[in-house]
Amino acid sequence: MTLRLDPDRLLPADPATREIARELYALVADLPIVSPHGHVDPRLLLDDEPFPDPAQLFIRFDHYVTRLMHAAGVELADLGIPHADGRPVAAPRDVWRTFCAHWRLYAGTASGYWLQHTFATLFGIDEHPSPENADALYDRVQAALETDEFRPRALFARFGIDVMATTDDPMDDLAAHRALADDPTFTGRVLPTFRPDAYLNPLAPGYADNVRRLAEWGGHEADDFRGYLDSLERRRRHFVEHGAVSADFGVLEPYTVDLGVEGASALFAQAVAGTISPADARELLGHMLLESARMSVEDGLVMTVHPGVARNHSSSTFRSYGPDTGHDIPVAVEYVENLRPLLERFGDDPSFHLVLFTIDETVYSREIAPLAGFYPSVYIGAPWWFIDAPDAVLRFRAAVTETAGFSRGSGFIDDTRAFLSIPARHDMSRRLDAAFLARLVIEGRIDRDTAAQIVVDLVDGSPRRVFKL
Amino acid sequence: MTLRLDPDRLLPADPATREIARELYALVADLPIVSPHGHVDPRLLLDDEPFPDPAQLFIRFDHYVTRLMHAAGVELADLGIPHADGRPVAAPRDVWRTFCAHWRLYAGTASGYWLQHTFATLFGIDEHPSPENADALYDRVQAALETDEFRPRALFARFGIDVMATTDDPMDDLAAHRALADDPTFTGRVLPTFRPDAYLNPLAPGYADNVRRLAEWGGHEADDFRGYLDSLERRRRHFVEHGAVSADFGVLEPYTVDLGVEGASALFAQAVAGTISPADARELLGHMLLESARMSVEDGLVMTVHPGVARNHSSSTFRSYGPDTGHDIPVAVEYVENLRPLLERFGDDPSFHLVLFTIDETVYSREIAPLAGFYPSVYIGAPWWFIDAPDAVLRFRAAVTETAGFSRGSGFIDDTRAFLSIPARHDMSRRLDAAFLARLVIEGRIDRDTAAQIVVDLVDGSPRRVFKL
Amino acid sequence: MTLRLDPDRLLPADPATREIARELYALVADLPIVSPHGHVDPRLLLDDEPFPDPAQLFIRFDHYVTRLMHAAGVELADLGIPHADGRPVAAPRDVWRTFCAHWRLYAGTASGYWLQHTFATLFGIDEHPSPENADALYDRVQAALETDEFRPRALFARFGIDVMATTDDPMDDLAAHRALADDPTFTGRVLPTFRPDAYLNPLAPGYADNVRRLAEWGGHEADDFRGYLDSLERRRRHFVEHGAVSADFGVLEPYTVDLGVEGASALFAQAVAGTISPADARELLGHMLLESARMSVEDGLVMTVHPGVARNHSSSTFRSYGPDTGHDIPVAVEYVENLRPLLERFGDDPSFHLVLFTIDETVYSREIAPLAGFYPSVYIGAPWWFIDAPDAVLRFRAAVTETAGFSRGSGFIDDTRAFLSIPARHDMSRRLDAAFLARLVIEGRIDRDTAAQIVVDLVDGSPRRVFKL
Repeated sequence: MTLRLDPDRLLPADPATREIARELYALVADLPIVSPHGHVDPRLLLDDEPFPDPAQLFIRFDHYVTRLMHAAGVELADLGIPHADGRPVAAPRDVWRTFCAHWRLYAGTASGYWLQHTFATLFGIDEHPSPENADALYDRVQAALETDEFRPRALFARFGIDVMATTDDPMDDLAAHRALADDPTFTGRVLPTFRPDAYLNPLAPGYADNVRRLAEWGGHEADDFRGYLDSLERRRRHFVEHGAVSADFGVLEPYTVDLGVEGASALFAQAVAGTISPADARELLGHMLLESARMSVEDGLVMTVHPGVARNHSSSTFRSYGPDTGHDIPVAVEYVENLRPLLERFGDDPSFHLVLFTIDETVYSREIAPLAGFYPSVYIGAPWWFIDAPDAVLRFRAAVTETAGFSRGSGFIDDTRAFLSIPARHDMSRRLDAAFLARLVIEGRIDRDTAAQIVVDLVDGSPRRVFKL
Repeated sequence: MTLRLDPDRLLPADPATREIARELYALVADLPIVSPHGHVDPRLLLDDEPFPDPAQLFIRFDHYVTRLMHAAGVELADLGIPHADGRPVAAPRDVWRTFCAHWRLYAGTASGYWLQHTFATLFGIDEHPSPENADALYDRVQAALETDEFRPRALFARFGIDVMATTDDPMDDLAAHRALADDPTFTGRVLPTFRPDAYLNPLAPGYADNVRRLAEWGGHEADDFRGYLDSLERRRRHFVEHGAVSADFGVLEPYTVDLGVEGASALFAQAVAGTISPADARELLGHMLLESARMSVEDGLVMTVHPGVARNHSSSTFRSYGPDTGHDIPVAVEYVENLRPLLERFGDDPSFHLVLFTIDETVYSREIAPLAGFYPSVYIGAPWWFIDAPDAVLRFRAAVTETAGFSRGSGFIDDTRAFLSIPARHDMSRRLDAAFLARLVIEGRIDRDTAAQIVVDLVDGSPRRVFKL
Repeated sequence: MTLRLDPDRLLPADPATREIARELYALVADLPIVSPHGHVDPRLLLDDEPFPDPAQLFIRFDHYVTRLMHAAGVELADLGIPHADGRPVAAPRDVWRTFCAHWRLYAGTASGYWLQHTFATLFGIDEHPSPENADALYDRVQAALETDEFRPRALFARFGIDVMATTDDPMDDLAAHRALADDPTFTGRVLPTFRPDAYLNPLAPGYADNVRRLAEWGGHEADDFRGYLDSLERRRRHFVEHGAVSADFGVLEPYTVDLGVEGASALFAQAVAGTISPADARELLGHMLLESARMSVEDGLVMTVHPGVARNHSSSTFRSYGPDTGHDIPVAVEYVENLRPLLERFGDDPSFHLVLFTIDETVYSREIAPLAGFYPSVYIGAPWWFIDAPDAVLRFRAAVTETAGFSRGSGFIDDTRAFLSIPARHDMSRRLDAAFLARLVIEGRIDRDTAAQIVVDLVDGSPRRVFKL
């Protein structure tokens, strides 16, 4: 069976609608990539070393890919992920063979779509991976990776990436970002993102240690709440000085509350001492989300919130293989009451940008679109994670557009650690934008000229405006 | 860019399906409008004065329209809405210019669709509003408004409105309704609707004052619960005598409970005294919903429930500009357990009609359609507010029809205070009914004759039966 | 009006997509039926008596059908359902006439679709039921039922049923299953299913009596928790020995918890004594779900969970007509936290199969697909009850496939007590699978060969693998 990229893939089936979609897609197919939120390591570009092997590149670090093989009964160690007990980990070629033997699992999935795009466009692979061709494909990809054209910087240029944000620890010195910015041979724009969860959530692993490190750097007592706020503000400024445009928050629920300085200080002391109750930890985190919004108002960092994921659902997998190994599971999320204290205070400030992401699709039409359709600060985050997939993206567009139009969206966010998948993801998004707009045109809801303006704005204007790029 | 109405707008893209949809739509396109729930002021028709200006007509009172400009950073005072601090409010022409400059915000929204329909059909506008043509469009609309053809009664006739319900305070003397009914020169049917929220919910602003006014009218002590019930019943009779067919309830949740007369009396006394707790206020309101259902069983008024909206989410906007200014945000709602006490008592009575509306789409297939598919009293309210929009309406039809068929729906409800948008809204609904039914025909699920009967019944039979018109 | 089966029914409207769907459907249209979960009485096949009359066959026992007539104001006694007060029950012919007079209620519903399929394919009925033809149709169906071709075994063979599971009480001696298996003249495979709800849920009617009967059989005290577990295990073995492949659990919520033997014993004693609180009953049931999973790990029975239905919502209907009379209403369900204790313990065991069903559609993309996309034990149950309907099934496929692919589904489950509807239901599912896959092909997301493999696997491979057939 052949694996060919359909030039019309993801465009609507109806011929007249498809024709319009083709025209719209053509307007954006080759525009530069703007990637304001993601998880690529900046040292990848700084070092510009060749990717080691196909298994490292496509499988071992991509929990979208490993989880379906795990569901099919494959041990994660057999996919190259180190086990805490030190057991032998599969060799790259064996990992690849296992993957090829399970290729059928990905039919119809977003991962399968991206992999197919990447295999075809970068490596010229035109057949389905299988046990029979696994070794040949491995050799083919490996050979390509050893060429200069497949070094990270060469790919960065080939992908047409205009700007790409990484995600970084607040105490990161951002040396890699500075070195990249100072390197005259690299002209891309790679920005850090301030991600303070492990410093804000008293229940996060390592919280007390993180706060102590921060206090030590700041020159104050670990349980000095005002010092803590001050140090966070200074670390944010450090990020701003290194080009950061946003701060990202991964919370179970977007709960916000104003405890007052005294109330927050008292809970903070308990948190640092490790004696805080789960209920109070929730309160303190809610207060810190509010403080973080205040800091955004002051320093201009866009505030992005990614809530509603029960992380590390399988304790045994977490103990054996660590986080980000495929068992983070979405849960229902509530935004309207949870965010009210924050929006009461800062929601009307147009210079404050709050981007609300979700994996709980039910909130798009019910909560997020109505909020973004009133508050100047609120933007609708692009579909994320499990719902960054063709049908889900069209559901998203249909759910939010009728209430909030096209002006309140974040623009596409790839949010990926899989560097090679970036073009596939942005291309998918552009095709789906074209498909959605073409339907509105054929249904007489917007005209072609308007659709043409919108499709370009979604790819180029929206992310630059929302992320202040 | 031109702004032309596609004669096939909202019909399915597939040519064969579109052909069927066209035939179905043709059967209902010109049927009279039945509007059993809405917010037009009856004095508009009684006085029959010209509409003052385009800004008053299209923008200032339409929070569907103002909210998106507010999200884009426009102050509500600049849209003609008076600020509590008495600051100058923008002049109508300036409001209109601001609107034209933001026209692009409405692309793909329901409001944009209705405005475009109204501009084209009533004013012959065939270009997109813009800063360039704002003044010319203003003058054109203004000139039309000054003609007799654009007086409210002339439009009422031109729109083909057969019957239209308003929404009224329980203490309203309904003089406007009586005068309209008595006016031999006006042959339309304009009905009041009993909307007692501010007299039932102890947490509503002005509740105690309202209850006192009611008691004074009824000739009993303010905290006399039996007198209170009796006065409510008599006010409802007053409405029935003036043609009312329904009573409407806007609650956060459709919670119902039977506290017994003694339990309810005790909480009522606290409510009137202003000492009731929020939890007890919820109980009392739940009891009053049950009492209201009982009254409906007795006096025949259809009971409509519009739950699940967090009203006045932005306190600062509420303080400055009052209610209905764009920041009412939907929340998740539960119907199955909340309505159980009410349905246990009255659900099996086919003479009792309970119409359940929602903005929380998740309940259509899970809760409302199964309830309406069993209880003779329960009807499925048409999509409301944010989800009265093309894609959302088709989702609604797909969500409820397979469980409850076509016989359990309310028929279309425009629920609008924007008088000029009424034809656009009903036309949209009819096109979407035709589109949905055409799909069922092309998929071999119903035949054309059945579809033709249904499409007419949805427009004409359903609302008349459900609202006892 | 004629009632003709469109040979392309349920296939996509777009001609090119429809052509692909036709090819895919042709691959599975005539495959044998695998029905791993349902509610047909095994004695139907053991006795092989003629069906008594059309009303018994199509109406009286099918609460999908009776509920819509009830909503239209028909008393259930008039549909042949005995009333607790002993009032006269309508005669079969009168029931049938009532049904024919209400045939329009079913337009667009899943029940209408199945009935139409059955009427056309089995009885050659090519007109809509109506008051005019009611008697003629009754006579026609009745005459057919009296022929040998319409005996249950003849239909079982004609339907091409390869294997069919029933649902049985844990104390059932399974004599009917044994007799069927031992009957050389019947070559079908009819399997029992262990359904212990009334023995596990302290709030189920008859719980204490059931536990006592179980204890008596097991030879231990009624409140001996270890004896109780042991007896349940032995009853399960009895089922396994009679061919059972699964145990089914109908709970309000899929809550699981480990109380420890002592904690569970204490609550169990209270439950048997009838003194347990609702909160503790929930705990004990949660513990028993966990114990049941352990038993499945040990004896291999697939664990199926059907949660989220508020049973017998109308107390008066329940008192008059008993359970399963159309007023079971779905509620929102949570799987991620509720199932965590169970999955922590058994989720990684690929020999354990846990099939999660839902009527709450919101959990497909948010919870069930992500869980099934990681845990080797978790499978996605096919849409059930109200959402086993064409549009809902396509929503289901679109919601789960992008996250979990096609390998994590249960295969189609008819879950019906309406024996004659089985072919219609399986045919509907196959058409929808073909329709969904054809869309992925035309959108360039999978190729035709892959789609052809998948469509066959969904019908044949999936249910056999997941249910260990």
